[in-house]
Amino acid sequence: MLNDLFWIVPVGAIIALLFARIFFKGMMKESEGTDTMKRIAGHVRKGAMAYLRQQYRVVALVFLVLCVLFAWMAYGPGLQNPWVWFAFLTGGFFSGLAGYIGMKTATYASARTANAARRSLNDGLKVAFRSGAVMGLVVVGLALLDISLWWLLLDYFVEEATETEKAIVITTTMLTFGMGASTQALFARVGGGIFTKAADVGADLVGKVEAGIPEDDPRNPATIADNVGDNVGDVAGMGADLYESYCGSILATAALGAAAFRAEPDAQFNAILAPMLIAAFGVILSLLGIFLVKTKEGASQQQLLRALDRGINVSSLLIVGASFLVIHLLGLSYWICGSVIVGLATGIIIGKATEYYTSHAYKPTQDIAKSSETGPATVIIKGIGTGMISTAIPVLTIVAGIILSFLFAAEFSFANMSMGLYGVGIAAVGMLSTLSITLATDAYGPIADNAGGNAEMSQLGEEVRHRTDALDALGNTTAATGKGFAIGSAALTGLALIASYIEEIKIGLLRMGEEVLKIGDNVVRTADATLTDFMNYYDVTLMNPKVLSGIFIGSMMAFVFCGLTMNAVGRAAQKMVNEVRRQFREIKGIMTGEGEPDYAKCVEISTKGAQHEMVFPSLLAIIIPIVMGLIFGVSGVIGLLAGGLGTGFVLAIFMANSGGAWDNAKKYIEEGNLGGKGSDNHKATVIGDTVGDPFKDTSGPSLNILIKLMSMVAIVMAGVTCAFSLL
Amino acid sequence: MLNDLFWIVPVGAIIALLFARIFFKGMMKESEGTDTMKRIAGHVRKGAMAYLRQQYRVVALVFLVLCVLFAWMAYGPGLQNPWVWFAFLTGGFFSGLAGYIGMKTATYASARTANAARRSLNDGLKVAFRSGAVMGLVVVGLALLDISLWWLLLDYFVEEATETEKAIVITTTMLTFGMGASTQALFARVGGGIFTKAADVGADLVGKVEAGIPEDDPRNPATIADNVGDNVGDVAGMGADLYESYCGSILATAALGAAAFRAEPDAQFNAILAPMLIAAFGVILSLLGIFLVKTKEGASQQQLLRALDRGINVSSLLIVGASFLVIHLLGLSYWICGSVIVGLATGIIIGKATEYYTSHAYKPTQDIAKSSETGPATVIIKGIGTGMISTAIPVLTIVAGIILSFLFAAEFSFANMSMGLYGVGIAAVGMLSTLSITLATDAYGPIADNAGGNAEMSQLGEEVRHRTDALDALGNTTAATGKGFAIGSAALTGLALIASYIEEIKIGLLRMGEEVLKIGDNVVRTADATLTDFMNYYDVTLMNPKVLSGIFIGSMMAFVFCGLTMNAVGRAAQKMVNEVRRQFREIKGIMTGEGEPDYAKCVEISTKGAQHEMVFPSLLAIIIPIVMGLIFGVSGVIGLLAGGLGTGFVLAIFMANSGGAWDNAKKYIEEGNLGGKGSDNHKATVIGDTVGDPFKDTSGPSLNILIKLMSMVAIVMAGVTCAFSLL
Repeated sequence: MLNDLFWIVPVGAIIALLFARIFFKGMMKESEGTDTMKRIAGHVRKGAMAYLRQQYRVVALVFLVLCVLFAWMAYGPGLQNPWVWFAFLTGGFFSGLAGYIGMKTATYASARTANAARRSLNDGLKVAFRSGAVMGLVVVGLALLDISLWWLLLDYFVEEATETEKAIVITTTMLTFGMGASTQALFARVGGGIFTKAADVGADLVGKVEAGIPEDDPRNPATIADNVGDNVGDVAGMGADLYESYCGSILATAALGAAAFRAEPDAQFNAILAPMLIAAFGVILSLLGIFLVKTKEGASQQQLLRALDRGINVSSLLIVGASFLVIHLLGLSYWICGSVIVGLATGIIIGKATEYYTSHAYKPTQDIAKSSETGPATVIIKGIGTGMISTAIPVLTIVAGIILSFLFAAEFSFANMSMGLYGVGIAAVGMLSTLSITLATDAYGPIADNAGGNAEMSQLGEEVRHRTDALDALGNTTAATGKGFAIGSAALTGLALIASYIEEIKIGLLRMGEEVLKIGDNVVRTADATLTDFMNYYDVTLMNPKVLSGIFIGSMMAFVFCGLTMNAVGRAAQKMVNEVRRQFREIKGIMTGEGEPDYAKCVEISTKGAQHEMVFPSLLAIIIPIVMGLIFGVSGVIGLLAGGLGTGFVLAIFMANSGGAWDNAKKYIEEGNLGGKGSDNHKATVIGDTVGDPFKDTSGPSLNILIKLMSMVAIVMAGVTCAFSLL
Repeated sequence: MLNDLFWIVPVGAIIALLFARIFFKGMMKESEGTDTMKRIAGHVRKGAMAYLRQQYRVVALVFLVLCVLFAWMAYGPGLQNPWVWFAFLTGGFFSGLAGYIGMKTATYASARTANAARRSLNDGLKVAFRSGAVMGLVVVGLALLDISLWWLLLDYFVEEATETEKAIVITTTMLTFGMGASTQALFARVGGGIFTKAADVGADLVGKVEAGIPEDDPRNPATIADNVGDNVGDVAGMGADLYESYCGSILATAALGAAAFRAEPDAQFNAILAPMLIAAFGVILSLLGIFLVKTKEGASQQQLLRALDRGINVSSLLIVGASFLVIHLLGLSYWICGSVIVGLATGIIIGKATEYYTSHAYKPTQDIAKSSETGPATVIIKGIGTGMISTAIPVLTIVAGIILSFLFAAEFSFANMSMGLYGVGIAAVGMLSTLSITLATDAYGPIADNAGGNAEMSQLGEEVRHRTDALDALGNTTAATGKGFAIGSAALTGLALIASYIEEIKIGLLRMGEEVLKIGDNVVRTADATLTDFMNYYDVTLMNPKVLSGIFIGSMMAFVFCGLTMNAVGRAAQKMVNEVRRQFREIKGIMTGEGEPDYAKCVEISTKGAQHEMVFPSLLAIIIPIVMGLIFGVSGVIGLLAGGLGTGFVLAIFMANSGGAWDNAKKYIEEGNLGGKGSDNHKATVIGDTVGDPFKDTSGPSLNILIKLMSMVAIVMAGVTCAFSLL
């Protein structure tokens, strides 16, 4: 069941990993600068690696328990595919590896970026951006490699009566390695998010607000922890997150393709291959875009942004062309290219909307800054209000994206549900096909931020500080658009995963020997049943109280999950505040620079807080879909996933945008507007920014993964849900 | 089509209105106290009435436009029932009247409560509570009266081929008067909510935080506006809101009963009558409960609360008994009583959960207070986190309530969908059957609050202040539980309304001459089609992209609506802050009490802000379901309603509970904990309370109405959606 075109996928993966290595080597050749710079970078690197080791230890334990469970389910009552536990393990391993490499690169790159910025702005941008690209390329490279290897392995071992059934079994089995990636990603995002924001909130509240010293001031004991946090949260966490999105979208689409073309054995394999090939071409074409990113000395914020945009836009256009080529080579309907274009456009529009609502070049964020004139309470009210309103454009865009990508692939018939949902999956793959470059712009952010921190702590000259500030400010915008992009892709991928869940249920029924389904007065062969048949069989309509209960609980899950992570940050931050206050009080000469603060103690507090707090919300995300299935059955689970998707998507945008806008409202004042640094207005916006920290970097981004992890768990546990449910 | 039992309904209505009059007269006989007390009460009354007149003028304009539209639709293309425009009008009128009478009573009662509190705590409680009961009784009395009159009118005029069809036409026509009530209620809640919170935020930020003067201090220019706000928002707004809930639940259940028993002409009328009779008995039995509320001098907070609880609990128990009687008299299945009990229990559990999360007698609120030690940012983070987590119990309770009330009425079969949904409606009616007493405890809150304000401004003695404080604190708890109750009933009513929407679609199809429906390979007579048939006909399954788009947009609507109202409060409050600051600066001797502040100017700012800001969000709630229907058709609308219901419900609980907890965290510190009044901790919690103001009194409660208004609009416009949709 192989086709020569398949080999483009591992080749794409290897090219990506090769260039990641080249960029990494290139960055390592740069000098790390003065001894102070090296020392500070060393502190951060040591803290970050220590944290990651600690985190992987906890996650390994969770994986061990789940693997044993899956293995028992497979070899015991036969409720599980025997490959699942191993697929789960590799997904988790590669997701963790992507985060690890990305973070290692970032911690090596920050001092080098600061040092390159001593020469010129362009040199600084290049080092930071290419280091970000290492992560982008590693994520897509490992993902495509993993997918290729699994495909070859399963193609060799799986035996089924027909080739079409074999394809379905292979694709749905592969899908389960997504759960491993999701589980790893959730821990990385939640743990990293708590770590970084506990440190950030603690550093800001005591340092900026109480002691009145600037950000990244070496006198602040939490400053190293803050910089470590950027790496473990924004780099390692995001890498694991997007590895998971990327794999999820490709695998779900492959599974949907296998199902949609079940009746056409010739086309089926090509439909499975299409998402992988689009992704592989995307990697190669994004590389071209990465090489286009450069700037000149004294470039304005807008020019820097345009330099990044140019890379992304050129890659996107080339991918549109490549998708026509792929579809042509595979002999599929050209309308499917429409879905690819829709996906790319959706991502870009959501990114632009995010920029509008979170950049202080525009009115919404400026208005939040202005509301500081009446104190912190109105800053919070305005930020929450604006964040809520900002959900409108992304939601309408996603809705248009879903409808159009569905209709294109289904050739304008709502009745052709299998093809339409395959189109939605293709749109998700299209959106993520530029991932290596968009993730590069995203991972660039924390590197630039750390470079600024390093420059400040090493007391480099005014001009260097000015350059790293420009790079850092750019990073804030790309981080916000990157988040919009991550959320948008999560919505489409989440939808494709729900559809895949139903396919998985079908396999579960067949495995249990349910050869026919009684739907109303009709009897349908299970193997031939369409998606619509399944929806009717399980009565997944909106008036079924089990479906409605699922929707309510799904909506609630999004809020409760956010609430738990918010409170986790609050608790860890309170400990950090108390520690920083204690050091300011007890360590003599700390404010004059004569006494050295105990940085390690603050890193330790963040580490402990994160490890302690990340377990419960993450386990909840795994347990709830299982319990839901055991009580409410298939229709309840689908309700849960749809409710979680709808509410989670909107809530995630709200939190990311409110947080981003607060951050930039503060920056707006720091740039000298409305009284500037140190004014009461500034203090009010610092409070806003502090509240926004867990919004945008802990709870909001974790929701993306929650949406997908719940679907993944449902898919993996589908066999159990088929066999038993209470109601 | 009448039955002697029907007459219990208007009799119940008249008893309610009679006792309302008796309580009102009794309250008016009390003295209003000293000249200062009279003068202050006069100011508040004048401001409140002036605001309400202004608001009704704007609303009248909206009603005029909509009535013309409905009349044109009915007499022009025939897309509308010809009674609708008139039904719409009376719903709006009575809802407004209920709010008006309640508010008038409240503004007369506050000074009298303060004066009675000069004698004893029990006297104060009695005056305040009985005045609150006036509103509770007026709301249920007018609702039952309006329903009875409409029934008699339509019974006389409507002519259909069979009695069963006639019953269906009557019940669905009556349902449309709910849209009038909802529209009025939304304006009242949004307008009143913006008014009161602009004043409150303004008064707190400048008075408490900047000038350091106590709440309700006569030197604060916004203090009268703040007291006016309690009346227009918490009394008039809530009265209109719950009038709408009450009517909506009875009418939707009647319509569902007519549909469920279509095939059994004998039982059909009884099924329609059941919700009305349960409500009528509820009114009479709640009156008994009202008489039970009394206390003794020096009663603790817990004792006062128990005095109110006793009234509600006794009423609830009696209603359980009465529901068995009603069901017996009507000859329906006794299992339906199970749904009544489930409804009552659901309301009580949600109320208790709300109390746990918002009262400072418990850990969650105390923890929020403690987080003030690390400043306002952690107070906000903790409050938001706790509010989000607090959604878990209410959601699980509602889910259990839906499943159980469905299964009881459907006699434990999920397939019996019509009966099950009738059961959900019955549960909503059961929950709201104690409305006259629960609303009394709720309306009592602002009366006690104003009494406290009056006592403070009139500089009554320490002991009187102490008593009014005790009454006020009790009011905060009852307001929070009242909100939980309003949200819980909105969820059940919202669900019943979605089911009614589908019935309305059926009538629309029949009116258009669509006698048969083609569902898959089957053909069904439209008149005989079951709910499940309709779900299949319109493919209202969760994988239909139109349904999913609806869910996304519904979730978004809840957030955008909240965002708009939050920002409205923010803008109006900023104006208020500037005005109060100006007066403090410009009016000489204002702080020494020699110069008099310009109270009227502050009332004017709130009035203008509210009038200006309430129109856009309210119109959005009306327009979106119409546009959704025109583009996405029936399946899109149902998705919208389900998404709005799920997300809106959870979001409303989160906002109400966060807001309530912040308020009480501040009170906890004011009672002398953690440094007490004036400490930094206190200031941090005042900021939390200020953020919480629009959460709990503007955006959160408006969501209840949004959920129902969107369904009502969909029901009224069902004819149009049947006739045309783009996709």
